[in-house]
Amino acid sequence: MKKLINSPDRVLAEALDGFAAAHALVVALDPERRFVRRRITAADKVALVSGGGSGHEPLHIGFVGHGMLDAACPGQVFTSPTPDQMLAAAEAVDAGSGVLFIVKNYEGDVMNFQMAAELAAAPGREVQTILVDDDVAVEKSTYSTGRRGVAGTLIVEKIVGAAAEQGRGIGELRELGEQVNRQTRSMGVALTSCTVPAVGAPTFSLGEDEIEMGVGIHGEPGRRRIKLAPADAIAGEMLGAIVTDLDVRPGTEVLLLVNGLGGTPAMELYVMVNSARRILAERGLEVSRHLTGSWVTSLDMAGCSITVSVLDERLRSLWDAPVHTAALRWRV
Amino acid sequence: MKKLINSPDRVLAEALDGFAAAHALVVALDPERRFVRRRITAADKVALVSGGGSGHEPLHIGFVGHGMLDAACPGQVFTSPTPDQMLAAAEAVDAGSGVLFIVKNYEGDVMNFQMAAELAAAPGREVQTILVDDDVAVEKSTYSTGRRGVAGTLIVEKIVGAAAEQGRGIGELRELGEQVNRQTRSMGVALTSCTVPAVGAPTFSLGEDEIEMGVGIHGEPGRRRIKLAPADAIAGEMLGAIVTDLDVRPGTEVLLLVNGLGGTPAMELYVMVNSARRILAERGLEVSRHLTGSWVTSLDMAGCSITVSVLDERLRSLWDAPVHTAALRWRV
Repeated sequence: MKKLINSPDRVLAEALDGFAAAHALVVALDPERRFVRRRITAADKVALVSGGGSGHEPLHIGFVGHGMLDAACPGQVFTSPTPDQMLAAAEAVDAGSGVLFIVKNYEGDVMNFQMAAELAAAPGREVQTILVDDDVAVEKSTYSTGRRGVAGTLIVEKIVGAAAEQGRGIGELRELGEQVNRQTRSMGVALTSCTVPAVGAPTFSLGEDEIEMGVGIHGEPGRRRIKLAPADAIAGEMLGAIVTDLDVRPGTEVLLLVNGLGGTPAMELYVMVNSARRILAERGLEVSRHLTGSWVTSLDMAGCSITVSVLDERLRSLWDAPVHTAALRWRV
Repeated sequence: MKKLINSPDRVLAEALDGFAAAHALVVALDPERRFVRRRITAADKVALVSGGGSGHEPLHIGFVGHGMLDAACPGQVFTSPTPDQMLAAAEAVDAGSGVLFIVKNYEGDVMNFQMAAELAAAPGREVQTILVDDDVAVEKSTYSTGRRGVAGTLIVEKIVGAAAEQGRGIGELRELGEQVNRQTRSMGVALTSCTVPAVGAPTFSLGEDEIEMGVGIHGEPGRRRIKLAPADAIAGEMLGAIVTDLDVRPGTEVLLLVNGLGGTPAMELYVMVNSARRILAERGLEVSRHLTGSWVTSLDMAGCSITVSVLDERLRSLWDAPVHTAALRWRV
């Protein structure tokens, strides 16, 4: 295993300390490292809290800040954070308007956020949950009952985060998040495995000319293992699955997210953007917004995922709304 | 070779098309793909033009936009763009206040930008050049006479870009860029080689437990090949070389750039940030600004570089100034 680390035991703590120092104007790290929170918390808004296993950075800690999350709980690598972490985060950022958990659909995360919701619920504190399950690759997986939550999570966090900033109520925000999740589909492909620091060896092995279509962000098996194919063919298979499942009509406006899994450079992602745009155009879909980069990763895995999310005027406006986090930052 | 591409011949054109489509609000691609330019050009400012071999994305095309470059010329992978490309870019973005080339110190780039400067110079058009050579690893290298220009280039582009936006004259901007270059030092480390698409095999080979200290961004040899070491030791060697060469006193304010080389995930970069901060603090240097991410890459190479750039109140203010490009975007 070749990694820029000191030891597997210390990698999470040191990465969190480095992250918090590098982004000290935007976030603060809990002294016990249970959560990352906004440096400045807005008053009277619903608090958005997410989290999950580490190793997917910048998700979720990189999305804490104005216009997105109020706090994120980092678990050990590929391991759910504990209910105690989630409870501490909820208590830290609750501004009196309720706490909304955004949870990727993995059994550990679902169970722990559910326990935290019960622990956090109190007189005067409403807690609700949005479950994200955008991965069309498989109907259930190693760590999930039902579909996995993957890169679409960042779209849910961005759009719901913008609406929370506008002062929307917790029920409306939950419904909005559920709508975005229903309208968002993803699929991934691995060119290499990731390597979990504490394991020290690749999670799975692929032949020199093999790729895993539909891989999960922890290296879970996908739909099938095939020979390496041109970008056009890979994008075609992923978008075929996505668009069929979305069941959209020609003329529909969409956001296209091409997401690197950690070990893939920008040049290849933009080749995939180019392929994806052509394929979506052939299907009559109108890509009005793009996001390209490594946002929801699987440690050092080479590969990418494609996400398509249906937009309308309201969702586009929420997507465009100002955001100021460590990883995503814009102001229109 | 496992890459998300269609063919080595088409990778640059397709990546540029994908890039231009994804960032169409910020940039426009010349129809002949000779350069990427700002979508909206400011009047009466000095035009900043950079460029170099592709494969280092987001450098340089990702830094075109308000507050940084006016245009960037992408060469083939690891190959200088041609003087014709540079001339076309200069003519496209010249707003009557002169054209300033920002050039990394590689022989091909230096020669071609010099030829372009001669071609572009005309009555009423002044052309000047800033040469960046921030890499302390070696005194000359495979493709360079003198030190290589690496990740420090983005700091020069950002700071000079902000000053150009303020309406500074070409002579003042060139001097500013030269000052930043003098105060900026970098060094890289490779955990793996990169693979050039047209070659199809790794540029160099490293043993399972070996790393290349001082590697160049095209895979050029560095100072020495050593056994994989902890992040603290790697950061210590890099910063030892950097700080010795910078010759700074305790109390000096600096910017710390930890830059991924393309195949390294955020978690490892933040571990390096944490190590680097501790080491710089021991030397009495004050890190007032950070940038962490994969900005100046070497295709899919795993590894990182560290850059330290001396700041003062003016330089910090120019660093903080608004920027709106595909890759860097902030507004204070």
